[in-house]
Parts: sequence; C-alpha cells; structure tokens
Amino acid sequence: MTTPADRLTHRCTRTPPIRGFCDTEYERRCHAVQNRMISAGIDVLWLSTEADIRYLTGFQTQFWQSPTRPWYLLLPQSGEPVAVIPSIGLPCMQQTWVNDIRTWSSPDPVDDGVSLLVYTLFELCPPLATIGIPMGAETHLRSPLNDIERVRHALGKVQWRDATQTLRQVRQIKSDAEVDKLRHVCAIASATFADVPHLASVGMTEIDVFRAFRIACLQHGADDVPYLVGAAAANGYDDIISPPGEHVLASGDILILDTGCTFDGYYADFDRNYALQTVDAATAAAHHRTWDATEAGLAVIEQGHATCASVFAAMQSILMPGADHQATSTVGRMGHGLGIQLTETPSITAFDHSPLQPGMVMTLEPGYCYAPGKLMVHEENLLITETGYELLSNRAPRDIPVIN
Amino acid sequence: MTTPADRLTHRCTRTPPIRGFCDTEYERRCHAVQNRMISAGIDVLWLSTEADIRYLTGFQTQFWQSPTRPWYLLLPQSGEPVAVIPSIGLPCMQQTWVNDIRTWSSPDPVDDGVSLLVYTLFELCPPLATIGIPMGAETHLRSPLNDIERVRHALGKVQWRDATQTLRQVRQIKSDAEVDKLRHVCAIASATFADVPHLASVGMTEIDVFRAFRIACLQHGADDVPYLVGAAAANGYDDIISPPGEHVLASGDILILDTGCTFDGYYADFDRNYALQTVDAATAAAHHRTWDATEAGLAVIEQGHATCASVFAAMQSILMPGADHQATSTVGRMGHGLGIQLTETPSITAFDHSPLQPGMVMTLEPGYCYAPGKLMVHEENLLITETGYELLSNRAPRDIPVIN
Repeated sequence: MTTPADRLTHRCTRTPPIRGFCDTEYERRCHAVQNRMISAGIDVLWLSTEADIRYLTGFQTQFWQSPTRPWYLLLPQSGEPVAVIPSIGLPCMQQTWVNDIRTWSSPDPVDDGVSLLVYTLFELCPPLATIGIPMGAETHLRSPLNDIERVRHALGKVQWRDATQTLRQVRQIKSDAEVDKLRHVCAIASATFADVPHLASVGMTEIDVFRAFRIACLQHGADDVPYLVGAAAANGYDDIISPPGEHVLASGDILILDTGCTFDGYYADFDRNYALQTVDAATAAAHHRTWDATEAGLAVIEQGHATCASVFAAMQSILMPGADHQATSTVGRMGHGLGIQLTETPSITAFDHSPLQPGMVMTLEPGYCYAPGKLMVHEENLLITETGYELLSNRAPRDIPVIN
Repeated sequence: MTTPADRLTHRCTRTPPIRGFCDTEYERRCHAVQNRMISAGIDVLWLSTEADIRYLTGFQTQFWQSPTRPWYLLLPQSGEPVAVIPSIGLPCMQQTWVNDIRTWSSPDPVDDGVSLLVYTLFELCPPLATIGIPMGAETHLRSPLNDIERVRHALGKVQWRDATQTLRQVRQIKSDAEVDKLRHVCAIASATFADVPHLASVGMTEIDVFRAFRIACLQHGADDVPYLVGAAAANGYDDIISPPGEHVLASGDILILDTGCTFDGYYADFDRNYALQTVDAATAAAHHRTWDATEAGLAVIEQGHATCASVFAAMQSILMPGADHQATSTVGRMGHGLGIQLTETPSITAFDHSPLQPGMVMTLEPGYCYAPGKLMVHEENLLITETGYELLSNRAPRDIPVIN
C-alpha cells in the first residue's frame, strides 16, 4: 500500500523546541498584565477562555472541546493568579506554575462554580473593587449568560470594566520562546506545502487531498491540524472557508490550501495556490499581482515605522491600483496577529493604526477578486524585528506552481 | 521508511454515508424548534455558536477557529431562518438551504454587525416581542459582551428568555441520517483502536503514540481528530485530559487513549486502555470492574424506561458497592450525549433524571479511582432504540489488552 508518507520529499528535520515554558515566562506575562491593570484601574481580571487562561498559566488541554464545564482564572493586581476550575482539571492544572487552584465537582445543575467564583472574587477584591473582563471585539465570555448575571448580582456594587486591551497588548508581543515555537510550526507547514505537488493530483477528490495534507502535516511534526480550508475549482475558486467536497481535481483546476497547524499550542497560518497541469493567463497574472502585493507590504515593514493600515494600503495599491486605498478588502482584512490562536490582533486593515512592533508575529494575507467569482488569496507568516522582519514561512514562488 | 499506515491491519472498509443532509432534514429541525418556541412564548431565537448554527443550517466550516468575527442566526416562530453573517462567509452559507442571508464586511471596529442584527431583529419581531437566547448550563454567547449589551439596549422593551431547552430537546434526538454519520465515525474510531497494539510499543514517547493514532484515524476515514487525550504511566494514570508528553512508554505502563474524531461534523467519543507488556493485578481487576459497570448501565437501558440517573446508579453500584449511589463520580458524570459536539446533553449523572429516549446517542463512561492516584475510565458509544440500545463502538474486551 502506498501511503502519503512514502511520497514525502521535504521532511521537516528541524529540531523541535522544548515543550512548555519556564515559570519565569508566565511570571513575566502576569506582571506585564498586572502593570496594565494598575494603569487601567482594574483590581481583578476575570478570564474564561482557553487562549486567555493558557496564556497566563500554561494550562493546555483539548478538553475545551467539551462545552459542558466553565473554567475561570482570576488575576489580582498583585500576586499570583487563582484558578477556579472543575475538579476533573486539577491534575492537569497542578502541572502548571499555578499554586492556588480551587475546584468544584462539575457539572453541577444548581451551582456550577458560581458561588466558588463569587467567594474567590470577594476574597481577592478590595471594597468597591473594579473587575476587568474582556468585552471588546474578538472576545467572548465562555460561561452561561445566566451564570454571568448571577455573579454580577452577587457582587453587587462592584464596577465592571472592559479589559480587552489589558491582556491583548501583552499577548501581541511574543517572547523569544514563543517565537521559537512559531518558527518551528511554520517550518512544519512549509515542509508540508512543499509536498503538495507529490500529494495532490488530477483524479483525487478534494477530501482525499485534504486528508493527505493533514497526514503529511502530522508526519512532519505538527501536533494537530485544527484548521484546514481551501478549494479546488476550474480556473479559480470563490470560497475559501468551506470544507472539502467530492469535487474531483481536473486539469485546469486551481487548488488553494490554507492551514492552521499547531506545535505545542502555537499556530502556523498560511496558504498556497497550485494549478493542476495547466493555468490560464488571468489566474497566472492574479498570482503575480497578489505575490507583488505581499512584496509591497513587506517593503513597508522593512522601511520601519509601519502600521497595520500602512501595510494594508501598500498591498491594496498593488491589488487595486487607482482605487481608494482606504477601502476594505472583500474579506475585511489582509492579515492578522498569530500565536496561540489562529487569528489574533492586530488586524491588517485600513482602520487599524496599530504600529507593527518588534516581537509581533503577523500574517500578510492580500487577496482580491480578479474576475467574477474568482478569488486569489496569498498568505505568509512573519516576525516583526528591530530591523524589519523575518519570514517564518518559506516565501511562495511568484509563479503559481503547476502540478503535473 | 516505515509509516504507521504500513502497520494498519483493521482498515475501516465501511462505505461512508453521503455528506450533508437533505433540505427536509433542516426544515424538520427548524419546525421542531419552532413548535417549542410557540410553547415557550419565544418569538425569535438568537443563536451565535458553531453547533447551534450548523444544526439549523448545515453551515460547516473550520473558520470558527478564528475568534475575530461574530456570526448570528435568527429563527422566527414561523418561516425560515435568517443568517446575519460576515461577508467572507457568504459563498459558504449560500451552499446551505438558507435563503435569507444578510452580510456585513467584518471586522468592523465601530459596528461589527450590531446594527444589521438589531435591524433584522426589529423586522422579525412583533411589538413587545420575546427573544430567546440559550443562557443555561453548557451554553455561551459567542459574541463580545459589549455587543450583546448594545443589542439589548437598542431593542429596548423586548423581553429576553432562556432558550436553552428549546433547542437542546430537539438536538438530543438524532434523525436516522444523523445516526448513520455517528455509526460511521464510531466504526472509524473502532478500527483505529484495533490498530493500537500495532501502533504503540515500549520505547515510543506519548507524543509519538498520539501522532500515530491521529494519522491512523485519518487513514481509516476520519475527517479530523479535534480531540485526543490520554496518558501512559507506570501501573496506572491519574490525569486523562493533559496533552501527551515526552514520557517514554515502558513495560508495566497503562496507556489510555480517548478520542473525539469526526466524520462530516459528527463525533465519535470513546476510549480504550492498554497494558504495555505486563499488567499488575490491581489494574487488571479495575479494568474488569469498570467493564462490568458499563454492562450494568447497558442492562438498565435494555430493560427500558431508563433515565440518566438510573444508569448512573447502576454503574456506580458496581464501581463503589455499598457506597451512596447518589454520590457524584470524581469527574462529575459518567457519560453524555454525543453528536455535532464532543459532549452534548443529557448527562449521565445522579441529578439528571432525563429519560433515555429512542434516537439519543450517548456515551457511557464509568470511571473511578481504584488506588491513590490511579484512575480507570472506560467509554462506549450507543444509540438508544425502541427495544434497548445499539452499540456504535465495538465493545471493549473485559480483559485489558496487553501490548507486547
């Protein structure tokens, strides 16, 4: 039996970074957040999502796939974080640097952690306290609305404040240890994309190609492939978020694969386009133009003092010369932060004027409709450095690769 | 190079079900929910999570991995659902049965769909309307808290009502077409577990074993493996939700793997235990007892008129004879519903008195501490039928398998 592995030619041989982080990494993160809490007048930060809790504790488990149980982390303005979690998570949380772990037997139909959370908040809060919760764009509370109301009611005159920026601004700047994991997972994705001409061929279904790609990612060293979207269609695709279907790859198809694979909880997120056997002139030109748009974005970053908006404008000026460069793209943005989530802030948009700072890991993702119903989207991953950038993904070729 | 695929011996040869569902399936689901909305006095249902939206529309994409954009579905008490979604999702939503799709360019820093949502709610709502939102246990709103407040404020005197049960009671009973997908994905997981003695061996790390298992799942036909937890430890494990580590499998280790793999968006969720080369008497006996607990649970279901609580009590009476059978287990429950989420309602607990009804797909998951720091957990998947049950997972053997 021939398996996809037998066809791999670019096996990723990079030595994996050590898993996890030193406790000092988490202490640094907490202190940085606590400094911002002081500026924002927030006494205690109340967190509930996988990414936020993992970022401050190292608590890593796929158990978040189950919606049953709520999980909480409280960070006071000084001192260590306090985990308020279901007892099933105790052994896993005990492996982290968190010392103060309070548990209840969950699920509980009457009180699923609410009174333990309220009790702990009372303990951590000064009188007339201000409690911070991420409430802004790209956030949500992973807790039943009824429970949120119960906590608010029980705490009475406490002030509630939006803590979106408090955590986000710290998370945006990656440490060297984080960058090392991102560099590694991008190398794994690059090696996998290099295999695609050996994995995909005319006659396979989209489903077959996606499966072969996912297996190759794992064989190159990815822990998981939580995100894999794409399409294959005659002379171009118009939808890049649908799951693969029964479409059989044919000569003239354009195949796009966009993956988020992970290593130790850190994401790569980039895409590649391929032509099956032959490529029409319009698609070949669109590939050039989109590649050039990425170059224009990179050039702005290289010059220094780039903002998300200035990079967006540079890319848009290539994709739509003469158009209003402040116009939003068809997909709303052309790149974003990258880390423990597939997409993080800031966003490469016309309206996001965040400066690109050293330590940010970003995607550049220019894309446009080059003909009715035909999209072209490119994506690369890079680290912003003191002197410009470091590409974490192996740069795509300017000519669309043709798979024979 | 030898790859895990070369060692597969139990390739799943079952013919996959057709992907997707007929429009009539979604119409039936919506009508069933709408009937409950009438009883509950809910005029419009406001949904925001991947599972709820997919259940009523068929909108399936891994794009939910990105936290950036909110997505909404509104279901009026009569008529068809209305999707209020970011424009990037339009082509994918157009592939579903939903006709009324309203989009905005997201992300938008000022108004990320809020006014479009409010406008659509005004259009769908009668004066003094009651809007239903899932607010209870195992739910959350996937939307920024600030946006939820904005919508509530804009709608003024509208009544808000908890719609948790309205949707849940419909989702709990699977159609024949849903059961067919669940049967298939369980067959894939069964075939993969049968391979474990060929994939895992002394000298491999946990990470290696997990990777080989994940690849085997895909090779047997799974679309994805969003959930894989487990452990390997000398003479028993105490933590079943941590990610795999660098631990090298040794003689005497007990290995547990618990997977949630998917086919066309439907989950299998069961586990298997293995002993490496040798097994101590206590662990062998604990495997017998846990297996017997599952048998006791199945026997109660076979008798008819079972409730979650009666099944829980039967399993608990085997695990802890003489103890208070109403006591909760250490992990809070011993089984749960299964479908488009890894864990759904109802829960096999002492406090959940839901009758087990034909069409429910459940896991039975007895587990206990058989020695300090040593857990034993078994899990099977089954369909509740008119005459008892149909096992969807190949029943584990009573003796723990020993891998040589």
